[in-house]
Amino acid sequence: MSKVTIKDEFWGRYIQLVQDVVIPYQYEALHDRVPEAEPSHAIANFEIAAGRKKGEFHGFVFQDSDVAKWLEAVGYSLTIKRDAVLERQADEVIDLIGEAQQADGYLNTYFTIKEPGKRWTNLNDCHELYCAGHFIEAAVSYYEATGKRKLLDIMCRMVDHINSVFGPEAGKLRGYDGHQEIELALVKLYRLTGDEKYLLLSSFFIDQRGQQPHFLEQEWETRGRINHWVGKTDTLDLKYNQAHLPVREQSVAIGHSVRAVYMYTAMADLAALTGDEALRKACVRLWNNLADKQMYITGGIGSTHAGEAFTFDYDLPNDTAYAETCASIGLIFFAQRMLRLSPDAQYADVMERALYNNVLGSMAQDGKHYFYVNPLEVWPQACNCNPDKQHVKSERQGWFGCACCPPNVARLLTSLNQYIYTTHGDTLYTNLYIGSELNTKLGDTQVAIHQQSNYPWEGTVTMQVNPAAAAEFGIALRIPSWSQGMEIRVNGELLNMAMDVEQGYRIIRRVWAAGDVIEVQVPMEAHRVYAHPLLQADAHKTAIQRGPLVYCLEGTDNGQSLSPISISEAGAFTEAFDKTLLGGAVVVESSGFCVEQESWNGGLYGRDKAMVQPVTLKAIPYYLWGNRGSGEMKVWIPEGKA
Amino acid sequence: MSKVTIKDEFWGRYIQLVQDVVIPYQYEALHDRVPEAEPSHAIANFEIAAGRKKGEFHGFVFQDSDVAKWLEAVGYSLTIKRDAVLERQADEVIDLIGEAQQADGYLNTYFTIKEPGKRWTNLNDCHELYCAGHFIEAAVSYYEATGKRKLLDIMCRMVDHINSVFGPEAGKLRGYDGHQEIELALVKLYRLTGDEKYLLLSSFFIDQRGQQPHFLEQEWETRGRINHWVGKTDTLDLKYNQAHLPVREQSVAIGHSVRAVYMYTAMADLAALTGDEALRKACVRLWNNLADKQMYITGGIGSTHAGEAFTFDYDLPNDTAYAETCASIGLIFFAQRMLRLSPDAQYADVMERALYNNVLGSMAQDGKHYFYVNPLEVWPQACNCNPDKQHVKSERQGWFGCACCPPNVARLLTSLNQYIYTTHGDTLYTNLYIGSELNTKLGDTQVAIHQQSNYPWEGTVTMQVNPAAAAEFGIALRIPSWSQGMEIRVNGELLNMAMDVEQGYRIIRRVWAAGDVIEVQVPMEAHRVYAHPLLQADAHKTAIQRGPLVYCLEGTDNGQSLSPISISEAGAFTEAFDKTLLGGAVVVESSGFCVEQESWNGGLYGRDKAMVQPVTLKAIPYYLWGNRGSGEMKVWIPEGKA
Repeated sequence: MSKVTIKDEFWGRYIQLVQDVVIPYQYEALHDRVPEAEPSHAIANFEIAAGRKKGEFHGFVFQDSDVAKWLEAVGYSLTIKRDAVLERQADEVIDLIGEAQQADGYLNTYFTIKEPGKRWTNLNDCHELYCAGHFIEAAVSYYEATGKRKLLDIMCRMVDHINSVFGPEAGKLRGYDGHQEIELALVKLYRLTGDEKYLLLSSFFIDQRGQQPHFLEQEWETRGRINHWVGKTDTLDLKYNQAHLPVREQSVAIGHSVRAVYMYTAMADLAALTGDEALRKACVRLWNNLADKQMYITGGIGSTHAGEAFTFDYDLPNDTAYAETCASIGLIFFAQRMLRLSPDAQYADVMERALYNNVLGSMAQDGKHYFYVNPLEVWPQACNCNPDKQHVKSERQGWFGCACCPPNVARLLTSLNQYIYTTHGDTLYTNLYIGSELNTKLGDTQVAIHQQSNYPWEGTVTMQVNPAAAAEFGIALRIPSWSQGMEIRVNGELLNMAMDVEQGYRIIRRVWAAGDVIEVQVPMEAHRVYAHPLLQADAHKTAIQRGPLVYCLEGTDNGQSLSPISISEAGAFTEAFDKTLLGGAVVVESSGFCVEQESWNGGLYGRDKAMVQPVTLKAIPYYLWGNRGSGEMKVWIPEGKA
Repeated sequence: MSKVTIKDEFWGRYIQLVQDVVIPYQYEALHDRVPEAEPSHAIANFEIAAGRKKGEFHGFVFQDSDVAKWLEAVGYSLTIKRDAVLERQADEVIDLIGEAQQADGYLNTYFTIKEPGKRWTNLNDCHELYCAGHFIEAAVSYYEATGKRKLLDIMCRMVDHINSVFGPEAGKLRGYDGHQEIELALVKLYRLTGDEKYLLLSSFFIDQRGQQPHFLEQEWETRGRINHWVGKTDTLDLKYNQAHLPVREQSVAIGHSVRAVYMYTAMADLAALTGDEALRKACVRLWNNLADKQMYITGGIGSTHAGEAFTFDYDLPNDTAYAETCASIGLIFFAQRMLRLSPDAQYADVMERALYNNVLGSMAQDGKHYFYVNPLEVWPQACNCNPDKQHVKSERQGWFGCACCPPNVARLLTSLNQYIYTTHGDTLYTNLYIGSELNTKLGDTQVAIHQQSNYPWEGTVTMQVNPAAAAEFGIALRIPSWSQGMEIRVNGELLNMAMDVEQGYRIIRRVWAAGDVIEVQVPMEAHRVYAHPLLQADAHKTAIQRGPLVYCLEGTDNGQSLSPISISEAGAFTEAFDKTLLGGAVVVESSGFCVEQESWNGGLYGRDKAMVQPVTLKAIPYYLWGNRGSGEMKVWIPEGKA
């Protein structure tokens, strides 16, 4: 089995932040002990369900999942570094969960406390299987970190219960959850235990989805067309949770974006494990649609707040973007599973894009404030005064009432070691250039690889390859799609980059001996990026990218209002590392133009154009935006000429 | 008293369309006899309220007002041309209204049929005074056209009833309507009858608005925080209907835009009639905010569909615009009242802008299809597939369930003669250049003026001035704000345009004799218009205007997708009258550029810019957009260079 430990200056700091601040903060928040945050009620609900105290259920119907995501992150954190205090806290929470589990294995505080007779009657809205999925992921994570089986056993009992309720057999529900999640979790449980029943249940949920007669529709009719959130309703949108078509017939990313990518993740998992070719093809189609037509340059997906959903091809408005943090995290899951399915650097390119931009940008430098919505253009006054933009915030918010994103960030960052490498046959594929120690088996040989990386500020990466004994195997290095002129040296010798390139990787197959060194140089010059001509929102505009980082302009650096600014069509960029900027970052400057407001002599409209003056524009990495007070921000900059 | 009869090729056709098609069509629609339209139920409700038949109330709580607006338009139409059939139809409807009136004068079919005990308990939502206002306007219009008093008497009884319910006296409601309208209607009733009680009631409603304790809030608390539309609610937004502050303290156009301009109209009326200086100043402040900071170039106002409302200064997004037809009609009312209050051409400029663009564009060439929402940029697929734009339609729709806009267009166009001139002292102010016959008194002299106009295609206007006897008086000609180099000749002699210009008018004061001829030449070259640098949505873009007409690009003329197109920063326009284009229109061509989609070699994002080719752009008047099938449209065009 592979083991990867991150040792990276850039990511190390964020992982440390999650361990030192986020996980303890979330623990307090789950216990309603953070004065400035809305109470979560999540632990209190378990205490009530466990009979430890009296009270009402509070919070969302999926409130339990916050506890699960926290436990999952704790597991990853303990894998990185054991911590007795944290482990005791987790064990106590797990004890509580055990007490809240019902005699038949059922676990869900909402239905236990509030609607005990209504279990499994509203899969569409009520997230029972979703919550179970998150606890399964937590159980796997915690067991792998600590070897403690208690939560794993709890969840195996819950899955046995679920298996007694759902399935193709007569008398069971041929249903599936309104919010996909358990499908990918069951695959994790299968990978850990090797028990096929978990794989079969995951496949059942995936295969059942979209089949006619539509389960969610029948269920909805049965309960009198009642929706948990809005009450009586005339419509049920099966596209919202990707239940409109059997999954193998789907080709377009549609509906709620988090649900979508969680489902695609499970589909790719199942395709890899079962060799189901129709499923694999559906994954490729959905990936292509998503990555080639419905993804922001920051790796954000789901362009409308209405239903937190995809809209349609090339519709990626910047100022009303939703681009939820959780959706980009799910996209990273999907990319990882596609990389496991087949080695193709395009998946890693998207993974990197989402990670370094949308996801990283969602968290404040203090670890306590988050963006759920990650716009590419912000006019703070519009967020406050135009209802069409009220979902967009110009500053990161504290732990929300619906706390999906912060715990998702925590579990992703603490498990980031799982995203660096994939293995196919005896070839190791390097997907992310993140400083780390790898121990794995390639062919029959145990290999240790020490990766050192100066990402994302410099493209210098070295890898020391230490096989237990000299042996032939492959090491594949991703050629980032944004790079030009990448160089690789093995023991000082420059490789021919025109050879042995497969699916975006330079494959190095040779007999490796202890002490071999690979040196990678990825030029990281800042450069312009343009969007597809059909992407209306970005027409006549350019973005700046440097390495994996997308840049943005902020009002703080470029005058209060950004709308009068354009960037010179030609002209070089200058780059400098500014160590005073929010922990240090490369700042990119460019020549541009600014309309002089004082020279405007019209009213609201007029014949005479205002004067334009040359200015120097200063761009900072997108992930750092909104950390210096509320102000304007934009990624896509109109191009202009003198 | 003045009498103006329109004799104008351009407007004559639209007025004829309203008379021949719109009014008869609306009559059928009100009677639920238009198969392709949703039933209106408006007449059926009156039949039920009158006891002529049994049934339930259907439609909106303000459904009655559709009947009123139709009757008002009928009155104006009969003023233009008596029509025995139409008059009989109207008389029958008026008989029906009379039968539906309650013994105490109360008139409202919703409360009569559906909630008889609930009269005057929900002013905020239920439009009782609003409907009364529209019937008062109809009564005035119909009486002025026909001399028939029946509807006038009905409404005077209703107003007496209202006076018994509302007022400053103990035991009466110190309230006002949630939707302003009756305020301006009562002024019309006062102007017709001279009875001060109507003016006092109007003033009462205007003065009471926004006073604390807030009537609408108290009323809402009393009925248990129930909203007619959404049921129980925690919020009541007093800004929505401009009840947040006493009107004399308001400075910013806010809330539902139709309510706002109807109120401002009444305020300007009252300021003119009472000399109330604080009220006049409030009107000027609100006008300035509205016209200088919150108005689209097309004269559209109210930039968000959420609450059909204003947002904030310089926030005028083009593709999510609301810019409701009724709001621009209300803006024309407000402008007309401001012109009566003081002669200033800026009011007429806005009136013309709204009339020739937003309002005229709302109606299809068949008179049977309308835009409620008048966007300045349309991507049809986004209207269908992005919920944030679902309020925007790419083609005009049939008579809607909520039929506010079509009857409002009908009543405006049939009364357009009232908007051409205003009189101050013995000076006649010419606000619109529309072919017409005027008979009026200036000073002591009866004067007939025959205006001939080639607007909007040519800026040649001639006015034959025929006083009953030679006399001194003033004729003021508006210098359109969009024009440069306007020339005026009196009996062939060129006037010095540097002299005698006041508030945007060239004043000609002389002794006029029968047969005097004024010739006006307003150059109508197509030209570029830029927006204020703070108007973010239009930054780096230009619009084309020619005379009063704003132009737009349509996909039909410029290739399917408009986003790859930019307009040359320099370069002349060519203009030609195309008689085959939708009844004939001047088409404007310009050099521009188009990104070649075929030359794009990236995926969704890439380093290499696509090639740009020179193209000829073809712009048509905005008011004609969307008449040739569904396609892209935009008013504001990015500027580019080769």
